[in-house]
Amino acid sequence: MVVGVLGGGQLARMLALDGYPLGLEFVVLDPAEGVCSASVSDQLQGDYDDEMLLAELANKADVVTYEFENVPAAAVEFLSGKVPVYPPPQALATAQDRLNEKTMFRELDIATPQFAAVNSLAELEQAMDQVGWPAVIKTRTQGYDGKGQAVLRQVEDLAPAWESFGGVPAIVEAFVPFEREVSIIAVRSRSGEMVCYPLTENTHREGILRLSIARPGDAMQALAEEYAQRLLSKLDYVGVLALELFQAGDELLANEFAPRVHNTGHWTQDGAETSQFENHLRAVLGLPLGATDTIGYTAMVNLIGDFPAVDDVLVNTHSHLHLYGKEPRAGRKVGHINLRAQSRNALEAELKLILALADE
Amino acid sequence: MVVGVLGGGQLARMLALDGYPLGLEFVVLDPAEGVCSASVSDQLQGDYDDEMLLAELANKADVVTYEFENVPAAAVEFLSGKVPVYPPPQALATAQDRLNEKTMFRELDIATPQFAAVNSLAELEQAMDQVGWPAVIKTRTQGYDGKGQAVLRQVEDLAPAWESFGGVPAIVEAFVPFEREVSIIAVRSRSGEMVCYPLTENTHREGILRLSIARPGDAMQALAEEYAQRLLSKLDYVGVLALELFQAGDELLANEFAPRVHNTGHWTQDGAETSQFENHLRAVLGLPLGATDTIGYTAMVNLIGDFPAVDDVLVNTHSHLHLYGKEPRAGRKVGHINLRAQSRNALEAELKLILALADE
Repeated sequence: MVVGVLGGGQLARMLALDGYPLGLEFVVLDPAEGVCSASVSDQLQGDYDDEMLLAELANKADVVTYEFENVPAAAVEFLSGKVPVYPPPQALATAQDRLNEKTMFRELDIATPQFAAVNSLAELEQAMDQVGWPAVIKTRTQGYDGKGQAVLRQVEDLAPAWESFGGVPAIVEAFVPFEREVSIIAVRSRSGEMVCYPLTENTHREGILRLSIARPGDAMQALAEEYAQRLLSKLDYVGVLALELFQAGDELLANEFAPRVHNTGHWTQDGAETSQFENHLRAVLGLPLGATDTIGYTAMVNLIGDFPAVDDVLVNTHSHLHLYGKEPRAGRKVGHINLRAQSRNALEAELKLILALADE
Repeated sequence: MVVGVLGGGQLARMLALDGYPLGLEFVVLDPAEGVCSASVSDQLQGDYDDEMLLAELANKADVVTYEFENVPAAAVEFLSGKVPVYPPPQALATAQDRLNEKTMFRELDIATPQFAAVNSLAELEQAMDQVGWPAVIKTRTQGYDGKGQAVLRQVEDLAPAWESFGGVPAIVEAFVPFEREVSIIAVRSRSGEMVCYPLTENTHREGILRLSIARPGDAMQALAEEYAQRLLSKLDYVGVLALELFQAGDELLANEFAPRVHNTGHWTQDGAETSQFENHLRAVLGLPLGATDTIGYTAMVNLIGDFPAVDDVLVNTHSHLHLYGKEPRAGRKVGHINLRAQSRNALEAELKLILALADE
């Protein structure tokens, strides 16, 4: 079986590494040269809207998936006519538009911060009455890792923020004074089988995920699973979905979901019975899903911009290094370290060393 | 860093799959087309004694290793002049000749079955007095998976066995009435650091490994480690070495060693902190070695000739499938299943199901 992937970055690379043992082969479509997945997959090099290449991809692959949510909807629609594409196009369309996404949360009784659609400065001013201060304005489409966002703290912030977006449709959301950010990685297969991983506690820095800690047995697990399963069912979803949530008191407020394998699920490579990558492949191929139980206590530290000497990482025998084959560059995710310990206390202690190492 | 591998079979494939996360790239030299590692490595296609290709391999790779012990000694010698080659040539030379291998065991006070060199039918007849009945005659070089061997039970067996070998130098060994076959996977790095995995208990069928069970805490662990470490030190070894032993009573008798990652160590992919493949790469690159502690209770079942439906394997959530991308063919190893359970009892129970599945 051949799996086609739109995008040849580190997520495609890690899908392939976990897919070969299942007897799979991989072909990616990506416009860039020297992509992360190049050594472990075939590549069709060209634009995502090149119908010749899309047809070639559909022809080579038994199933197609994608590793990022800004895939042109037209590309997915075109492919869908020729080959099974998962996650399904409606999930992609919903995730690509923050207003549709938040509206779906509301429809499914998934708690979410107050929000309002904004198409002009006047609407923004009005919306603030409804949403309250402070708030965050975000473009409805595009934007990731903190880009395409601005914080609104006072009336004077409104006009500059609106203008900086160049008048594109936006959404304004209440700024939630959250205690922690968590995510849940959920999987649904073609047969409708669903599994969830233990909750992940996440820390961002400058808008980029820095640290994820798996929290098996977390008090919020059941609620997070309930929310994720509502989404999976509603979207007739197939594959891995990551739902990001803010915790405020006993409440979980849905921030956004990603219709793909997700950085906050990388810890599953070393910390769970089955990795999110393998489970995504199992789901889109209609195979039985793998167990999501944890192995030990695991945290993931992103390597951003550059990575430490490999020796220094591996000398800690509980570290598992995952490099993406990328050249270092400021702000770029070049790899991650999964740290797996025997106890929660041991994890906390060793994590300090790994965080210091990643910061060097 | 680029790792060169002589041979592009499943061992090279699994080395590569575990090496990419360390930021490595792979190039293999193999005469065959469509080798197992093709999708996850570059390949130089040609004979192992083609000096043009060997020079190209040395030029592309920062270090060279090999995945089988029948590599021509001249090829390794040629490469050694141009690039570091591990395990070292003297380990390969010793492992390639059963007489040298057994003689080294004897020199290192590693218990071994009675044996004698045999270069003629007359010598074979004489040797039987020394070795005793029954015995096994084996060619000194070549031979694997039960090939190049014959059992000698009575005088009438001698001439046909000797003739079937075509007069090549041979070794005759006492047939040990062993209680079980075990192996120890040991690793030594360029810095001299040594680690061993827990003992593996092995079952062969028709000369081919069928089943391996990891036995952490086994009573024979210390003795097996002692033997393995004597070998590693004597050979100034670098990489993974597998030492196969027969247990008879409280004794371990060394049968043979393989200077490479080994089928009886495949369970470490899912059952140990660090797999034998990653540790082999760490060793040959001079990186710190990874922990060899077990995770749960693990067994490995080889898939020989053909493999069961993937669904049927994965529906057992403790099964981890490893296919090699090979076409089914009688007697061919096409993959393996690692079964990891929470307890020894659970392992025994589930193993029956997996063995039945592998036999279908």
